Formats: sequence, C-alpha cells, structure tokens
Amino acid sequence: MPRHTVISADCHAGASYAHGGFLEYIDAPYRERARWEMERLTAEHEARSRLFAEEFMQAQDSTQAAMQGGRSGAWDPERRARELDADGIAAEVIFPDGSQNNAAPFQAAEGPGAVGADHALQSVGAWAYNRWLADFCATQSARHAGLIVITIHDVDEALAQIRWGADHGLRGVLLPAGVGDLPFYHHPRYAPLWALCEERGLPLHTHVGSATPDYGELPGSIPLFAYESLWFSHRPLWFLIWGGVFERHPGLRVVFAEQGADWVPGTLRILDAMYRGVFRHERKRLSLAPSEYWQRQCYVQAQFLGEGEIEMRHQIGVRNMLWGSDYPHYEGTWPRSKRAIQKNLAGIPEDEARAILCENAARVYEFDLGVLDPLGARIGPEF
Amino acid sequence: MPRHTVISADCHAGASYAHGGFLEYIDAPYRERARWEMERLTAEHEARSRLFAEEFMQAQDSTQAAMQGGRSGAWDPERRARELDADGIAAEVIFPDGSQNNAAPFQAAEGPGAVGADHALQSVGAWAYNRWLADFCATQSARHAGLIVITIHDVDEALAQIRWGADHGLRGVLLPAGVGDLPFYHHPRYAPLWALCEERGLPLHTHVGSATPDYGELPGSIPLFAYESLWFSHRPLWFLIWGGVFERHPGLRVVFAEQGADWVPGTLRILDAMYRGVFRHERKRLSLAPSEYWQRQCYVQAQFLGEGEIEMRHQIGVRNMLWGSDYPHYEGTWPRSKRAIQKNLAGIPEDEARAILCENAARVYEFDLGVLDPLGARIGPEF
Repeated sequence: MPRHTVISADCHAGASYAHGGFLEYIDAPYRERARWEMERLTAEHEARSRLFAEEFMQAQDSTQAAMQGGRSGAWDPERRARELDADGIAAEVIFPDGSQNNAAPFQAAEGPGAVGADHALQSVGAWAYNRWLADFCATQSARHAGLIVITIHDVDEALAQIRWGADHGLRGVLLPAGVGDLPFYHHPRYAPLWALCEERGLPLHTHVGSATPDYGELPGSIPLFAYESLWFSHRPLWFLIWGGVFERHPGLRVVFAEQGADWVPGTLRILDAMYRGVFRHERKRLSLAPSEYWQRQCYVQAQFLGEGEIEMRHQIGVRNMLWGSDYPHYEGTWPRSKRAIQKNLAGIPEDEARAILCENAARVYEFDLGVLDPLGARIGPEF
Repeated sequence: MPRHTVISADCHAGASYAHGGFLEYIDAPYRERARWEMERLTAEHEARSRLFAEEFMQAQDSTQAAMQGGRSGAWDPERRARELDADGIAAEVIFPDGSQNNAAPFQAAEGPGAVGADHALQSVGAWAYNRWLADFCATQSARHAGLIVITIHDVDEALAQIRWGADHGLRGVLLPAGVGDLPFYHHPRYAPLWALCEERGLPLHTHVGSATPDYGELPGSIPLFAYESLWFSHRPLWFLIWGGVFERHPGLRVVFAEQGADWVPGTLRILDAMYRGVFRHERKRLSLAPSEYWQRQCYVQAQFLGEGEIEMRHQIGVRNMLWGSDYPHYEGTWPRSKRAIQKNLAGIPEDEARAILCENAARVYEFDLGVLDPLGARIGPEF
C-alpha cells in the first residue's frame, strides 16, 4: 500500500523556562524581569502539572506511557524531527505552546484579555517568541511553518510584528480569539492588519483556549473552560463575515484550529438563513452569503477524533479542511497519528484524503509538495 | 376536524411609557426619576422605531399590515384577550416586553451587565414591573402565567422578589442570561435562588436578547447581536449542568425561550462526550450525563419557524418542547399562529403535537387543562 504525505496543521513549540526559556531573545531592558518571571513560573509548574494531570489526564494514561522520555520536542529540533518522522508527519504548522512551562513570555500568546496580562510586556514577549520561532523553524524550513504572535492592543505594533515575522520566514499569524476590552473584529481599527495579511499572503489563525472569561476555581470550572473555549475560538468567524472583512479582503484566509469541525455546517446554516432572510438588506454591503465567504476564505483544522466530522466533509468543504496531530500535546493523535489517520481517512476517496492531509495545507502555507512527497513516501501512513 | 388547545410559552407584556408606564407601581422615592426617564425614552422612541423598522422589518411588511391598529395588547388586557382568541391561543406565559417603549423600568429585565444599567435602580424597576404584571395577570389568571423579574446583583433581594411574585400569582422566574461582572451560575452565591425556585415550583427562564456585549454602532453590529444573542441565551445551561445545580436541585426546571431549538442535540452531544470521555471523573460529582439532566429538568420554547426543529423532536425530547407565538412581537407567528401550527405540527402524531402545544406547558406552569380545553375547543387551530 502507498504511503501518504501528511502535513499537521496544528503543532506547538516553545522554549522551556526550566532550560533558560526565551531569555536570549528578549529585549535587554526586560531580560531581568523575564528571568524572575520564568523562575517563579518554573517553581509553580510542578504543582500545576499535578493538577492538570489529575483533572485532564486520567483518560490518557496509555498515551503518556507511550511518550517515555518526555516531550522536549517542543524545544529540541532534533528530537522533534525524529518524532515527526516516527509519527508519519512530513511537515507542520507551529503554534505557541504553554503545556510544559514553555509559553511565549509574558502571556504574549494569550490575548489582550488574559487574566493578569500587561499589554506592554505582552508585546515584548511576542517579539521574543517570534525571534525564537524564526530560528527554530530555520533548522528545517521546508518542514516547519511557524505562526507570528501579535499583540493587537497596538495595531501598529502588530503590523511591525507581522512584517518582521514574514521577512524572517514565518508563514501565518495567530490572531487572539478574544479581544478583552478592545473592540471586536468588525471594528475598522483592524483594517490595516487585514490588509497586510492579505498582501503578504499570511493566513490568520484562531486556536482554542485563549479567549474565555475567568471561571474561578470552582467545581465545574475546568469542563466549563474546555466547553466554552470552543465557541470563543469560533467567534471571529462571524465578526469577519458581518463586519465585511472577507468582502473587502477576498484574498485574506482564516484557519480555525483545534476547535472541532462539526460546528461548521450548523453555524453556516444559521448565518446563511439570516443573510437570506431577515438581514437580506445586508446584500447591499456583502456580495456573498456567509457560507460562500467560508468556502472562499476559511479553513478548519481538526483531528477528526469525534464521530461524524469526516462524514460532514462535503458540508464543511473538502478543500476547507486541514488535519492536525497537536504534537507534542497529550490530547491529540501523537504518537499514534498514523493509526488515527488510517482509521479516519482511509475510507474516503483518495483525492479527498490527499486534499485534507496535505494539499490544502500546502496551498495555504506554501509548502512544497515536490520536496515533501518523497519524505511522505518514506515515513507517511499507509492505506 | 378537532381544534387543539394551544399554550404559547413566549408572549410579552409591559406598560406603555407614553401612557404613564409603570409609574403608579414604582416606589414613591423613585417615581420622579422614573417619570423623566420615561419621558426621555418616549422622546427617543420614534427615532429608534424608525431604525428598528429599517434594519429588521423589511421582511415583515405583510405582517405589519395585518396588525392594523398597533400592538397595544402589550398593556391592554381586553385587546390582548381578543387577539389571543383570534390567534387560537388559550393561555400564555408572559415575559417582559420592550419593543414598544414599554420595558420594565430602569432596565430591570436587561440583566446586571446591561450598558448603562444602575443595579439599585434595576431593583426598583423589577419590583414595579412585578407588581404591574401581577395585576395584569389577575385579569384572567387561568390564562396568563407571568414571570418574575429578578435582580441578581443582590441575591437576598432576588429571593424577596421571587417570594413576593409567587405569593401574588406569578408562575416562573426570568433569569438574566448574562451576569455582567458577577460570577456566573456555577458559583455558590446563587444556591439560595435555586433552592427557592425548586421549593416553590417556579421554573427559571432565559430569553434571547439580553446577555450580549456591546457591539457598538458599526456595520454588522445588528446581525452580530442577533446571531450571538442566541448562544448567550443558551449559556446558563452548561453552567447549571457542570456547576452541579441540576444534581443538587433535581426539582429545578429551566426553560430556554425564543432562541431556537436546533442547537439542543448538538450541544448535548458534545457535553455528553465530555462527560463520558475526558471529564469522566466528574461522575463522582454528577450522577447523570448532561443529556439526562436536560431530559429531566430542561425545556426549550420554539416557534418552529426554522426547518428541521420538528424533525429533531425526538433528539430534543418531545416532553421537553414548548411552543410559543411571541405575541405581540412582529417576528413571531402572531397574528397567523393557527396557520403556522397547522403547517408545522399537523403532520406529527396527535399525542406529540398535544404535548408540545399544551401538555408540557400545562405541567411546567400548572395551567388547568380542564379549564383551558373548552376554550381551546372553541378558538384553537383545527387539524
């Protein structure tokens, strides 16, 4: 049976605070502040790990056992390359991490509404993370597409971060799914940001987990966070639609990562019904129906762990779906991605599987399949 | 063909500010303040009506034409009785209004997060609205089940509002779907509220439209409000589930009003998957799956204007569905409810139609079908 080229559109990386973290990448005036911040977080880390393990990980024992030796691939490029090979992944899109005390410094990737965040320090952290990531991706640039972390409280600053990142090989932008007290994404203050991403061909991304309110430490807070963070990650979609952003920027692309895919058809159905019904006067302003903007400009990244998402592929759009392993996180398909892919995608037509597994991602992130296919033929899943 | 008894579980009432509003029901020290507030709002009303008409109502011209003579049934009980008769509605559940400059005073029904709201004044307004509504419902108590407006910034105050309302014939409680800066509904501060509603047999309600953030005055703001207000109205569901409220209060019932019904199966599917999967250790705390709490304690009120909701009735639960006309609002089925019911419900088994049209509501609100069925046999829709 042939092997398939797989691009994982959802992986994570970040330098370990316990090993010095991002210190050398942080602007000198902030380095001391960052040092004690990282030391404090490292001290707190073990306790937090235990809580996390207790709350989340009981179902994952066998997976943890399979990852003997830890998950230092989050910052060690050589280990990462070996583990991607073993997992059948030819190339990857890299989001920030944070699961191993290795987050972008100063809560840079948590958005302007993060509890305790300082906007000015977040900017410093974003620059440090982006510099670190550019170096990290340069170790194997054909294989790694890193995303630029931006701080939207200052749009000019975000534009500078994007320009620097694109000039240094990064290939997309992480858009905070939540905006805190800032205006949401239908507001014209963000127009230069959309224009720059469109011009530079950089897809925007929202990722689960950084836009929710504070649930406190109460029984139920963790499942409430887990559940609501899905919706809060979808949320920019309808702001970009109704705000006319997709209308004015037909080349802008947005990827919705690690937030399931089964929400897409129902969401588009309601939005379309509004567009064709009570809000049909909006046609004067919006030339396409919401589902048509989706089809033209949006992508959803999924692991297809839930039932039904693959069956929904024609409603979601076969050209609008990306696969992702969530490496090196516990809760994804790694280190058993090959088996997961065989189980979920082997039953569908060959051209559709290839679109979802690599062609769509190659198109969005400008991966060179001429380079990746020989690697895929050696390491990819067989079916 | 026989006529069917219909209870509308979503109607609205409120005194017109242009006719003196709730003034005589407002505590004397606040009456002058209320008077100028109502005068100001009356002056602004015409401009707002025009905007509303332009944005929302283009699709509704024929409906408006059918309502010659205005919608004074919102405060005129005799006109209301005639219009309910003509529309085939034997009994109704009454929520606050606000569509005709007749909202509960001082934004009382808009929740603690309403833009510009003053919590202390909201309490004054809630008392005034509840007193007015108790008198209004007393005009035909077999036919009108009014809901108590509560102000949750002060839980003791809310308890007093509930006790007074129940003692004066009101038959349910309107729970703000949004909490502003207060803790959400998994917090123990609300425990006395759940206990009292359970003890007095008063169903809680969330209604679309009062929990959203401020979208500003930007292109797209109105469809964004319309779309997101659906989710924000669903939101208490999972807080009450994961917060253990349904577990600790098995007699508590919650009704989700005017926010569609097609969201229910998908939402329960994800919540159940969490409960059976990664959060299965929560079974120690929660003896039922989310869908089982739903089945036991929750109701969804819908107009079945969208396609597919009736087809989903076994997933939603035939015993968990209520019908509603949204009288006297433009966007519901009034004044053509009989035709809408025939179109949507005539095709399903008789016992299921009767459950949805009146039996479920009779059970939740303690309507006496022995009294209502003779009325239904005279005025109800035939099929």
